[in-house]
Amino acid sequence: MAATDLNFEIARLGACNIHSPMSGVRFVRDGEHVLYHSSMKEIEGYLQCNAAPPGMELAGPREKIYFDPSSLRCGIVTCGGLCPGLNDVIRAIVMSLHFHYGVRQVYGFRFGYEGLSSKYNHEPMELTPETTSRIHETGGTILGSSRGNQDVADMVDTLERMNIGILFALGGDGTLRGATAISREAQRRGLKLSVIGIPKTIDNDISYVQKSFGFETAVSEAKRATYAAHSEATGARNGIGLVKLMGRDSGFIAAYSVLVDSQVNFCLVPEVAFTLTGFLEALEKRLRHRGHAVIVVAEGAGQDLMPQTGERDASGNVKYGDIGFFLRDAIKDHCKKQGVDISLKYIDPSYIIRSLQANPHDSAFCLLLGHSAVHAGMAGRTDMVVSNWNQQFTHVPIELAVSARKKIDPHGWFWSSVLQTTGQPADMR
Amino acid sequence: MAATDLNFEIARLGACNIHSPMSGVRFVRDGEHVLYHSSMKEIEGYLQCNAAPPGMELAGPREKIYFDPSSLRCGIVTCGGLCPGLNDVIRAIVMSLHFHYGVRQVYGFRFGYEGLSSKYNHEPMELTPETTSRIHETGGTILGSSRGNQDVADMVDTLERMNIGILFALGGDGTLRGATAISREAQRRGLKLSVIGIPKTIDNDISYVQKSFGFETAVSEAKRATYAAHSEATGARNGIGLVKLMGRDSGFIAAYSVLVDSQVNFCLVPEVAFTLTGFLEALEKRLRHRGHAVIVVAEGAGQDLMPQTGERDASGNVKYGDIGFFLRDAIKDHCKKQGVDISLKYIDPSYIIRSLQANPHDSAFCLLLGHSAVHAGMAGRTDMVVSNWNQQFTHVPIELAVSARKKIDPHGWFWSSVLQTTGQPADMR
Amino acid sequence: MAATDLNFEIARLGACNIHSPMSGVRFVRDGEHVLYHSSMKEIEGYLQCNAAPPGMELAGPREKIYFDPSSLRCGIVTCGGLCPGLNDVIRAIVMSLHFHYGVRQVYGFRFGYEGLSSKYNHEPMELTPETTSRIHETGGTILGSSRGNQDVADMVDTLERMNIGILFALGGDGTLRGATAISREAQRRGLKLSVIGIPKTIDNDISYVQKSFGFETAVSEAKRATYAAHSEATGARNGIGLVKLMGRDSGFIAAYSVLVDSQVNFCLVPEVAFTLTGFLEALEKRLRHRGHAVIVVAEGAGQDLMPQTGERDASGNVKYGDIGFFLRDAIKDHCKKQGVDISLKYIDPSYIIRSLQANPHDSAFCLLLGHSAVHAGMAGRTDMVVSNWNQQFTHVPIELAVSARKKIDPHGWFWSSVLQTTGQPADMR
Amino acid sequence: MAATDLNFEIARLGACNIHSPMSGVRFVRDGEHVLYHSSMKEIEGYLQCNAAPPGMELAGPREKIYFDPSSLRCGIVTCGGLCPGLNDVIRAIVMSLHFHYGVRQVYGFRFGYEGLSSKYNHEPMELTPETTSRIHETGGTILGSSRGNQDVADMVDTLERMNIGILFALGGDGTLRGATAISREAQRRGLKLSVIGIPKTIDNDISYVQKSFGFETAVSEAKRATYAAHSEATGARNGIGLVKLMGRDSGFIAAYSVLVDSQVNFCLVPEVAFTLTGFLEALEKRLRHRGHAVIVVAEGAGQDLMPQTGERDASGNVKYGDIGFFLRDAIKDHCKKQGVDISLKYIDPSYIIRSLQANPHDSAFCLLLGHSAVHAGMAGRTDMVVSNWNQQFTHVPIELAVSARKKIDPHGWFWSSVLQTTGQPADMR
Repeated sequence: MAATDLNFEIARLGACNIHSPMSGVRFVRDGEHVLYHSSMKEIEGYLQCNAAPPGMELAGPREKIYFDPSSLRCGIVTCGGLCPGLNDVIRAIVMSLHFHYGVRQVYGFRFGYEGLSSKYNHEPMELTPETTSRIHETGGTILGSSRGNQDVADMVDTLERMNIGILFALGGDGTLRGATAISREAQRRGLKLSVIGIPKTIDNDISYVQKSFGFETAVSEAKRATYAAHSEATGARNGIGLVKLMGRDSGFIAAYSVLVDSQVNFCLVPEVAFTLTGFLEALEKRLRHRGHAVIVVAEGAGQDLMPQTGERDASGNVKYGDIGFFLRDAIKDHCKKQGVDISLKYIDPSYIIRSLQANPHDSAFCLLLGHSAVHAGMAGRTDMVVSNWNQQFTHVPIELAVSARKKIDPHGWFWSSVLQTTGQPADMR
Repeated sequence: MAATDLNFEIARLGACNIHSPMSGVRFVRDGEHVLYHSSMKEIEGYLQCNAAPPGMELAGPREKIYFDPSSLRCGIVTCGGLCPGLNDVIRAIVMSLHFHYGVRQVYGFRFGYEGLSSKYNHEPMELTPETTSRIHETGGTILGSSRGNQDVADMVDTLERMNIGILFALGGDGTLRGATAISREAQRRGLKLSVIGIPKTIDNDISYVQKSFGFETAVSEAKRATYAAHSEATGARNGIGLVKLMGRDSGFIAAYSVLVDSQVNFCLVPEVAFTLTGFLEALEKRLRHRGHAVIVVAEGAGQDLMPQTGERDASGNVKYGDIGFFLRDAIKDHCKKQGVDISLKYIDPSYIIRSLQANPHDSAFCLLLGHSAVHAGMAGRTDMVVSNWNQQFTHVPIELAVSARKKIDPHGWFWSSVLQTTGQPADMR
Repeated sequence: MAATDLNFEIARLGACNIHSPMSGVRFVRDGEHVLYHSSMKEIEGYLQCNAAPPGMELAGPREKIYFDPSSLRCGIVTCGGLCPGLNDVIRAIVMSLHFHYGVRQVYGFRFGYEGLSSKYNHEPMELTPETTSRIHETGGTILGSSRGNQDVADMVDTLERMNIGILFALGGDGTLRGATAISREAQRRGLKLSVIGIPKTIDNDISYVQKSFGFETAVSEAKRATYAAHSEATGARNGIGLVKLMGRDSGFIAAYSVLVDSQVNFCLVPEVAFTLTGFLEALEKRLRHRGHAVIVVAEGAGQDLMPQTGERDASGNVKYGDIGFFLRDAIKDHCKKQGVDISLKYIDPSYIIRSLQANPHDSAFCLLLGHSAVHAGMAGRTDMVVSNWNQQFTHVPIELAVSARKKIDPHGWFWSSVLQTTGQPADMR
Repeated sequence: MAATDLNFEIARLGACNIHSPMSGVRFVRDGEHVLYHSSMKEIEGYLQCNAAPPGMELAGPREKIYFDPSSLRCGIVTCGGLCPGLNDVIRAIVMSLHFHYGVRQVYGFRFGYEGLSSKYNHEPMELTPETTSRIHETGGTILGSSRGNQDVADMVDTLERMNIGILFALGGDGTLRGATAISREAQRRGLKLSVIGIPKTIDNDISYVQKSFGFETAVSEAKRATYAAHSEATGARNGIGLVKLMGRDSGFIAAYSVLVDSQVNFCLVPEVAFTLTGFLEALEKRLRHRGHAVIVVAEGAGQDLMPQTGERDASGNVKYGDIGFFLRDAIKDHCKKQGVDISLKYIDPSYIIRSLQANPHDSAFCLLLGHSAVHAGMAGRTDMVVSNWNQQFTHVPIELAVSARKKIDPHGWFWSSVLQTTGQPADMR
């Protein structure tokens, strides 16, 4: 990736001329950037050719703001599947707009982009500190959600009619692409509309975002499933516990769950190919030596082993074959043929995990993410997402964030740690 | 049920002639019974005909004990599916034998009745306060388990060879029937073998046992699933959360989970018949009025609506059709035909629940259950289970406990409370 | 206690002539009673002298109700210290009034009896299914609370002015005595006012109430403290973990916490006297043999060992000396004198426990308690509390409930179980 | 800080000539460094003067190792107060030595440095995968701990006599200074002893260590206390919840707990001075406007407001005055004088937090920390700690880690976020 990619200009609505009402806080100055790289070697390359190493704009409150809080109207929308922390982020945005800037009119659009579409006629909710003060104590999203995009012109009509100045959009790639489209259509029309994305992906697979909200809660909760699988596996002769976890294209949840519960013996992710024979041989060997096995498989792993469904969901994502059932049946068949008497228990905790309340640490993360989104919007940034990079909050152009999925590097330290922890063969092809 | 059924003599091995080593504790005297009935009306009937109302022998330490602790050898075996609290009970038995009576030789048979069979050659584990002191902090069973019975004569040979005086058997009906067979074979051979059952049924469906261990943990944990279902249901237009819970013949877990999380709108149990049409109409009505619905279904509900599988598991239980998948598909088909656009999420938390550690309250219950089992065995009782009745621990002959399954009374206060909570139609036929 | 005491007539407001709007539920008929006794022996005494054994009126919906739901106005008030489940009970009352009977006007009085007093001018809250639907997910009470009684005539003036038909009062003895005074003053004035108490006592010390709400959550949470104490005790040479738990006059929480966490070695409760010397000798012996000790002490234990404070709190309760600090210092002094190098950690989790959300099982209990209270009020009962006895919900005259505190019987099976679990000397005087 | 400080050579025992037995993992090459800085501006300075920016040696497995695993003997020691994750780290070290390198002899020294001293005669524990496999499921340390250092020569005698090759020392500054002393004495004697520190500080106050293990669990658990405080505060007129949290010299736990539970209204830390008058005025204002307040105070805050105790603990730390009791009494006195009727509840959860099991995310962190420590030791590094910096594991000389305490920067973004969250005055002097 070239440096220029990263030092991308963040889109702005224009000149800032109103002073921020916050007192006693540290304002970020323009030009403060967080380094993209964290290793010496990578930096040295830039040094040697006298180039500035790439960085990301630092998030945080600006001394001068773009919007006049007293007349500003803001909107929030949540799209796609549930993810722990949605309500925390909604609450943080409402509280920050209200208490940090004095913005009094905040609307929650219902059921994702449907709420911006004239077709559905969903009434927006008024969001105030009173109505949102305890919403972070429950999972899900108080706004409701839906999959799929709506007509962009129609959505911008709604925003124009309601005179919305900042739209906060919580969602994954599809949602963020929609946010870009809205931002550009608004600019075409000359509207003063800031569109700030908050990347929501339980799979933690958005580029230029080191950690997405809800991920930590997800891997923490996944432990309940791997723990159960381990109890079932050790509670029987040749016990096998098989857990399917989220991860369509990127296996971060599955891989991290191994570090969280190091009693897992096999981890299968989309990024690392394996053959059925390679895996079954390794499993058989483990059963022979240890009498039980715990397997974690990401939903997107081993898709090449199954016939393709050809279907797509409302968001346009290809429907994957069910690797969990596939592996369960393949293991049972194989062991039956080998005359090995096994006891296999299959666990799929997906929807319990997705609808959880954020755990305390994630909740703090959501708070700062929400604050950062508000600061960015108030300063007139648009067409960008708030991100977290090397322990700091940053701004990233949406274009960059949706450019490619973030994936596990099979040759990097993270996957190496997983292999060290499971003890599984590095290559099961 | 006749009074005589309940005032059943508990089987005993013979005269007690050794004094209990415990000091400062309250000894139970022979003849102390807990009333079977708790309502005035039921008792009045006995009063009027001058009959003694039925009761159960009170559990607890006896002043005179049957076995000499210094030479006694005991065994513990866990059979069938996992259930929260197995390790708590094992630990309580080991601790009570050791600290209350000074018994030094306690063996854990591995993998259920397989561990008593010569065929499998599993080595028993030595169980001491040191090796069991923290086992209650994990779910599952440290002994392992298996389904199905083994040859009775072969198992009694093992017990005879190992000179076991008390066998503690944790399991459901099948296991308890096996325990009776072992006890009777031992008596036939003139062996001094006490067989004490500890009823294990996550479904809470054993007769003459008001509450079985693990049940409370199960319904507590079920809340995570119903809560998730509620978040998913309210997070979408026409959202439906469908949760399948344990309950083959008795719907106690499903029904109790409604009281635990009163956001559930429909509860389907094996004891209350319904037709697909009746249920779907009620569901449609709910969606029209409230826009979302949460459904809890016990695994044994609605079996008459599906084709029968005809298969049986290793314990000999008929394999049920999967009512969860059946309902999921039936709801989707129906709504598609009606042109209602729904978002249905299906959750089956079964194995996560079964393998949990007992919750604190359940843990206390397991402790007292284990102590009661030891006191019964030391006093020379046999062919019985320890039970809990009207807040007290009691003795029940195995024959009585396995006589019939305990079920929800569709006309009783408990089911009435469920109906009051869900607001579902009392009759969906 | 004489039978007549218990078969006490529950106070009623008059004849019932309106039909309950509930359908499909089981109605309780007048004359249905739950037996007070549960042991055969106690019942036999009554049998022999041809007397009816004592019982309690069964709670539940009645076919005929006293109030006309369409015009009825109800009030709820919460008094005294926090207890897990207050919001659950409030919610259950609101939901039952609304959905079971169609009552539309329910008011929450703020900050305990202050909210009924003209002096404070607190505005009551309107309580609806919408405003209370998720309040059970948080601890505390949404109504606020306060200690102490207010002028009875003034409170009845408020109720009369607001035309309240049923007042639900959640609180301990003092509150219940106030409820009786209100009920009697209203009857004196000829008002149709039903006053239904819901006994709130985290100590579980109200007579004729087998289990009070919040108790189970409290003992579950106490485990975190005893567990911490055990970790600290075993993490050091001569480690001592000392935990003070709630229990002013009755040691149920402390005693039950021993069954919940059987790693506790000493349990000190108000009902069982001990001397400092007796206790310290036992402790020293334990340290010599095992190298660590965990002690649980109820706040009301050993009050005779300390100088009396002579102070009272706003509820009129005598302020106790702090047995926790007293024991901590006494142990340290003693060990210093004996030259034993100890590491003592002191834990007082009181306010964390009191402000918790009810746990799932307790939540179900609160639901049924709230329903029972509404059914009792709608049927025109007054001056009574809803209770739980032998697994059923019942009605008890307030006079009886506040007649004396329920205490641990030092010669009963419960304390005997505690002694069996800790292994502490039965007598430390 | 000069670059040279950080590019400090990590001490090594000598030439590496044995090949690592691990296969399929990514080996770290010498010269791989993690950048110390993460902001563009800081790096630009180095660029302009052509200097290499400072960095830390990357942790991880090396291809060539220093010790021969077949004959190596290792020791582990845990010192100071309890901290969540101690058992996780112990387990990770044992597992890594065993499974990654084949080391078979690992000893646990008991009760901190006492276990290395001839004076106490504590027998070391043998640590194997079997004996440590489930220790991470409980809090505390299975090895026991103690405060204070022991005679260095005596400790090295023990290590020499036992022929220990790597000593892993888990502890805070005092412990790490002891580790340096041991390492240097060993080098003086020409022993091949690697001493690897694992920084243990629940306060997260060790320099060059971005996050210490147990910290995340601590702030997560602190939420229970702040949540309780909030319930108590809102449950009464002029309710005040006061929570004292750990933090002797650095207020990270208190400050982070505000982000975790944004219902906190005041956060007092050692790094930001305040006067009693300034604080009480702000509190009074809050009570007047909002009717309740939640306060979090770090144990080391406001020490200048109290008389000094002059005492020191066994580790040599000055005993602080109790700011919790001091503030509680000061608030009560002040409000009494002002005629404001308050209800204040004081919560000190310290020992419950310290003795917790690590939460799932922390547990993963401990695993990688333990692996990193083993890799460092096997590669012959010594006199260093394993650290975490910008999401990667690194090596830091002990000298650097103990050079100064890490503190909150009152002008940095972290404290600014806290101020934005509480809304408290930036200056209460």
